[in-house]
Amino acid sequence: MSGRARLREILEWRGFLDPGPENAISDVAGVRVGHTTLITGSGVLNAGHGPIRTGVTVVLPHDRNLLHEKVGAAVHAINGHGKVMGFEEVREVGVIEAPIALTNTFNVGLVADALLAYAIREDSSVGVEFRSRSLNVVVGETNDGYLNDLRGRHVRQEHVWDAIEAALRSTPGTPIEEGAVGAGTGTGCYGWKGGIGTSSRLVPQEAGGFTVGVLVQSNFGEAPQLVIGGVPVGRHILPPDCTGPLESEAGSIMVVIATDAPLTSRQLGRLCRRAVGGLVRTGSVLGPRSGEFVIAFSTTNRVSHLPAFVTTQETVIADEDAATTWLFPAVVESVEEAILNSIFKAETMTGRDEHKRYALPLENVAKLIASHGGSSIG
Amino acid sequence: MSGRARLREILEWRGFLDPGPENAISDVAGVRVGHTTLITGSGVLNAGHGPIRTGVTVVLPHDRNLLHEKVGAAVHAINGHGKVMGFEEVREVGVIEAPIALTNTFNVGLVADALLAYAIREDSSVGVEFRSRSLNVVVGETNDGYLNDLRGRHVRQEHVWDAIEAALRSTPGTPIEEGAVGAGTGTGCYGWKGGIGTSSRLVPQEAGGFTVGVLVQSNFGEAPQLVIGGVPVGRHILPPDCTGPLESEAGSIMVVIATDAPLTSRQLGRLCRRAVGGLVRTGSVLGPRSGEFVIAFSTTNRVSHLPAFVTTQETVIADEDAATTWLFPAVVESVEEAILNSIFKAETMTGRDEHKRYALPLENVAKLIASHGGSSIG
Amino acid sequence: MSGRARLREILEWRGFLDPGPENAISDVAGVRVGHTTLITGSGVLNAGHGPIRTGVTVVLPHDRNLLHEKVGAAVHAINGHGKVMGFEEVREVGVIEAPIALTNTFNVGLVADALLAYAIREDSSVGVEFRSRSLNVVVGETNDGYLNDLRGRHVRQEHVWDAIEAALRSTPGTPIEEGAVGAGTGTGCYGWKGGIGTSSRLVPQEAGGFTVGVLVQSNFGEAPQLVIGGVPVGRHILPPDCTGPLESEAGSIMVVIATDAPLTSRQLGRLCRRAVGGLVRTGSVLGPRSGEFVIAFSTTNRVSHLPAFVTTQETVIADEDAATTWLFPAVVESVEEAILNSIFKAETMTGRDEHKRYALPLENVAKLIASHGGSSIG
Amino acid sequence: MSGRARLREILEWRGFLDPGPENAISDVAGVRVGHTTLITGSGVLNAGHGPIRTGVTVVLPHDRNLLHEKVGAAVHAINGHGKVMGFEEVREVGVIEAPIALTNTFNVGLVADALLAYAIREDSSVGVEFRSRSLNVVVGETNDGYLNDLRGRHVRQEHVWDAIEAALRSTPGTPIEEGAVGAGTGTGCYGWKGGIGTSSRLVPQEAGGFTVGVLVQSNFGEAPQLVIGGVPVGRHILPPDCTGPLESEAGSIMVVIATDAPLTSRQLGRLCRRAVGGLVRTGSVLGPRSGEFVIAFSTTNRVSHLPAFVTTQETVIADEDAATTWLFPAVVESVEEAILNSIFKAETMTGRDEHKRYALPLENVAKLIASHGGSSIG
Repeated sequence: MSGRARLREILEWRGFLDPGPENAISDVAGVRVGHTTLITGSGVLNAGHGPIRTGVTVVLPHDRNLLHEKVGAAVHAINGHGKVMGFEEVREVGVIEAPIALTNTFNVGLVADALLAYAIREDSSVGVEFRSRSLNVVVGETNDGYLNDLRGRHVRQEHVWDAIEAALRSTPGTPIEEGAVGAGTGTGCYGWKGGIGTSSRLVPQEAGGFTVGVLVQSNFGEAPQLVIGGVPVGRHILPPDCTGPLESEAGSIMVVIATDAPLTSRQLGRLCRRAVGGLVRTGSVLGPRSGEFVIAFSTTNRVSHLPAFVTTQETVIADEDAATTWLFPAVVESVEEAILNSIFKAETMTGRDEHKRYALPLENVAKLIASHGGSSIG
Repeated sequence: MSGRARLREILEWRGFLDPGPENAISDVAGVRVGHTTLITGSGVLNAGHGPIRTGVTVVLPHDRNLLHEKVGAAVHAINGHGKVMGFEEVREVGVIEAPIALTNTFNVGLVADALLAYAIREDSSVGVEFRSRSLNVVVGETNDGYLNDLRGRHVRQEHVWDAIEAALRSTPGTPIEEGAVGAGTGTGCYGWKGGIGTSSRLVPQEAGGFTVGVLVQSNFGEAPQLVIGGVPVGRHILPPDCTGPLESEAGSIMVVIATDAPLTSRQLGRLCRRAVGGLVRTGSVLGPRSGEFVIAFSTTNRVSHLPAFVTTQETVIADEDAATTWLFPAVVESVEEAILNSIFKAETMTGRDEHKRYALPLENVAKLIASHGGSSIG
Repeated sequence: MSGRARLREILEWRGFLDPGPENAISDVAGVRVGHTTLITGSGVLNAGHGPIRTGVTVVLPHDRNLLHEKVGAAVHAINGHGKVMGFEEVREVGVIEAPIALTNTFNVGLVADALLAYAIREDSSVGVEFRSRSLNVVVGETNDGYLNDLRGRHVRQEHVWDAIEAALRSTPGTPIEEGAVGAGTGTGCYGWKGGIGTSSRLVPQEAGGFTVGVLVQSNFGEAPQLVIGGVPVGRHILPPDCTGPLESEAGSIMVVIATDAPLTSRQLGRLCRRAVGGLVRTGSVLGPRSGEFVIAFSTTNRVSHLPAFVTTQETVIADEDAATTWLFPAVVESVEEAILNSIFKAETMTGRDEHKRYALPLENVAKLIASHGGSSIG
Repeated sequence: MSGRARLREILEWRGFLDPGPENAISDVAGVRVGHTTLITGSGVLNAGHGPIRTGVTVVLPHDRNLLHEKVGAAVHAINGHGKVMGFEEVREVGVIEAPIALTNTFNVGLVADALLAYAIREDSSVGVEFRSRSLNVVVGETNDGYLNDLRGRHVRQEHVWDAIEAALRSTPGTPIEEGAVGAGTGTGCYGWKGGIGTSSRLVPQEAGGFTVGVLVQSNFGEAPQLVIGGVPVGRHILPPDCTGPLESEAGSIMVVIATDAPLTSRQLGRLCRRAVGGLVRTGSVLGPRSGEFVIAFSTTNRVSHLPAFVTTQETVIADEDAATTWLFPAVVESVEEAILNSIFKAETMTGRDEHKRYALPLENVAKLIASHGGSSIG
């Protein structure tokens, strides 16, 4: 696990809302995360063989069978320049019914197949019985090809299954690994090493007392753009290999939002559309080739696979304005901090052809921010 | 190749527009189709092993490298209850840059991976060079699990590559195989055997003289709903195993529309949204679990992968009303006829657990329609 | 009230579902309809002054204050070539909070203003108090300019208020006026006189026992396209002034769907997207300039304007597949029959410049259909 | 005209791109702006009569007849909680064919009617001839009800026509009025007086040398959220009446983007989706009740109302990545600066019931920002 600091261990950070106990997506009760990290070889690219700097990260909305206890969900494309899987069906029927997996751009097909294979293994009716003949898996991706041998599509079935098992074995209350791990092993963010990051916020009791948790796979932005707490870090601190002016971004970000607020898929869609706030706060202009996608789910109202009745009773939001007045900044703040955690926690990684993504020099950043009044926009 | 008749070989069929010379998607110059058909085993389902009744169908917008000569494109979900791949990026950037593949629901991941592997094989820069590090593949699917061992995901890389090679080898002007072939090997439509079907229409010269071609993978509808030429066939002729009232549909349809009209992606989107007309004309009510998707592309204005200039000159539509006044019925009529061709050409198929999808009895249909005045709404 | 027959008074009509007692949108308990019909002057167009052949039709989801008891809602554009008002907010927050009004294309602004004025009159907090400073009105339109002096925008505040009052005064269980009335006074459909039409369907008890009701303002299609019960009526029976081949349609249709099924806005959106089935069954190819919009609402779960709590308990759909398996054909069948009722009930109307929209000759139609086997696809 | 300073007259401001000569939407050649400002009465609200603090602002893409020379366009809802008019048709056919008007929430209907009346006056075929029987007007709004008597809908036909005439009379190269003017007369932003603001950016020659111009009507955000140049101004400087914690926002913003880049409507849609970046940079979390809409148009490729041919030749973007790499930050920077200009230029306004929106104290802001290092993220 990375020895580097999370954002709040280095910077005073102040927002309109407070984080949950772990400041992580797992603050939403029942949500679990598992990683498989693949680091093999070094030196010149041997296309199709290595070096390998990639992995897979799995988010479980709960630890039970997701096909049988689906969770309400929504998806959103900030910039659709990406290769996600499973979004159409979430839009239509508003549920997620399998573990959510994040991986590299070229591995989406194999990871989708591995999720399906996992569901097949878990349930003999899948693919056979009428109501189980169809199953939607959701996969997100970002492009780690600057460090990783993309052509090899090195994430295989066992790696996906391992990540699911790791998530299921994880102990609630223990930290989620961040930085260069899982699907974030080979990614970069604002020219530095990025990866996996997480954060959470608690909504006031009078607005429902809900929790919002976020996990990101960060791989976007250019070094001169980086902003932390309102301070234009990228104007002052650049990685050694930064070539200067903006290029066409070829990055991406995947954002996963979890909440225990009993939201409908329309309402979860509104949460999704606030995630962009977190990206922009860190300096992004939503570059042309940066595939930026958001997945949100609510753990509260589960949808049965084989319901016994046509109708049922559920807890729903009666005062959407009151709830979203706080859920929306909770999303923006969590996404911003999750992105920054993904960078703060990431160690320098050298990959194919000696390409390097450097760890952000945290002490320099802390000094720079102190010289700007030490504040944060939270 | 199926010995059964196409629609117009049996029924007088009259629409507002005439078909092209082949009455097929290949009437749009340069478009090619290839199938790989997988039929192995019989009897009781040995889950993961067989019987196999599935395949893959590939549509090529042209016979050159699609990454380097992208075609303008749009996609549309009539009913998003399906597992397509690659739609987000087509929505964002409006191009298709790889062969379009159709297959079974559980094979989308592996087929997507095979398309990527094909692009990797064809071009050493894919996954390596900056501008080629990302590549979007488009895969559609319908569910053949009533006849086929879905759990086995039997469509593998070589089958996809074979279908691409078959498409490239195909001679323009020779018929496209229809019915129980390729991705249509195991599908059913309105309770009968369905599969692959195709049709085309010519737009009048004064509206531009364009061609519209359609290919479908049909797998939707319930037997009592079937309508042909306005005649409620499903009220009179049912397959032996039809259980009567409507159930929740678990089918799907994929529609691929090709045209040489120089349409933008917005305009191609309007074409996509007319495909539903063809479904409804054959009796569909767009059932809850029927994933229904449309992909449209124009072969005329190609998009360069590594353009030399920021701007260029192109032929575009100046009179959208004039052009679409005929392009829209061309889509509706072509989709209707392609669906009916997919059923007319399909021979009876017996699959797993002795499940059968019967061939529509064409003589009975012809008699029934004759007794209703013999007409068609075309 | 038109002395002409509704569809089922002339044709045997058979669908998969049965209509409610009135076969009208008012079969959904509480839904009310009011019309104001404006017919003044004749002869040559005196632009801005007449002749006037237009009106307004109002649909009330219930007879109480809609701002304070909002209903869940969704909207959908089949073809966005139209000038509706209020759709953006329904998409975002999923409610309707004012009477729904239909009128002519050039009157949308004034009718929207009149709806607002009505809300202002009813409630002194509107426009003043914080939570009531915003109010979304929904207006639909079709273009009656072939018969009506569009430039005059003759539908004024008092006409809108009269239609609302007429709706409030209407007695449940009495028929809704159809044909050349209200917003349908000057419209045409498939070259004939069209206007307002309505129909309904009952869903089986095992699928929830819900009611679906539809009201349309029909103004689309070209005479040669008309299909009734699968019979290509437009190939045989044309209005005296029909000029033959297809032109660019400049029509439109507004569809209002009501139901007592406790659907979320996502689910109501799925209902909206089935309305196209009714259009296509009557022969439409969704012409380029035909603005085609759908509004759906559920009367069951009301949304409070000033809720007392953040959350509440509600009845929701547990088995969406079971419910929509019948709700979807209910929509398709109701829209088809409402369109045909709008034509069947409409008397010949002569408007500006002696333009005529002729009443469909029902006896000829009945004979033609009998000669085609007398059937219907319902 | 406001005697207050624009942003760059007070703060050093540094972005990745430079503004055009006027730093205004009028830097896009041919674009013109006109305002009508309505300020009447004071004291206690006499509902329906005053005090009046409102107006209308008109943006003309060029000074010729827009119906006959339409401009390519796109629209986007960041938060659909608003009452815009005309968006559906822009989405479908991708053009704007009338002046764009901004006004207050309750005046949308009357302003839409006035735009139509203007087109009627200008062209005797409007509403009469087949191809001119339909005309789409686009109206945006924000809610000025805290200062203004909303119930009176005080913006009338003559005010709209005056604003159009003012735009037509305006001399290119003279500044556009900003602050409490036109549609911004009664609005507030981040608790301060807001209103109309504008800005522009020039794209490098190697990316096409295009210009992007933006005009906003600002009426969103809460005082504690305000951020300027990355500095959390709202943590330090609050208006006298600020009540502290966040409430449910009832604001809104309208953003109009103009460019001479020859973009398709899909590409203009991508520009629209970057406007959110400007909002977030100033502190917004896209509050629940804040209707936030974007309209973008390109002045380059005009669409004829009565085209002579089906096809034509046009200049289009060949290298979308190259062009948008700079067009996207141009949008983000312009929107951010236009918002800040709308606040900087606005003088304190007292409205109904002695409600006040105070002018932002610019000297205090400048000092605060200097104390934070004086920088900006631009």
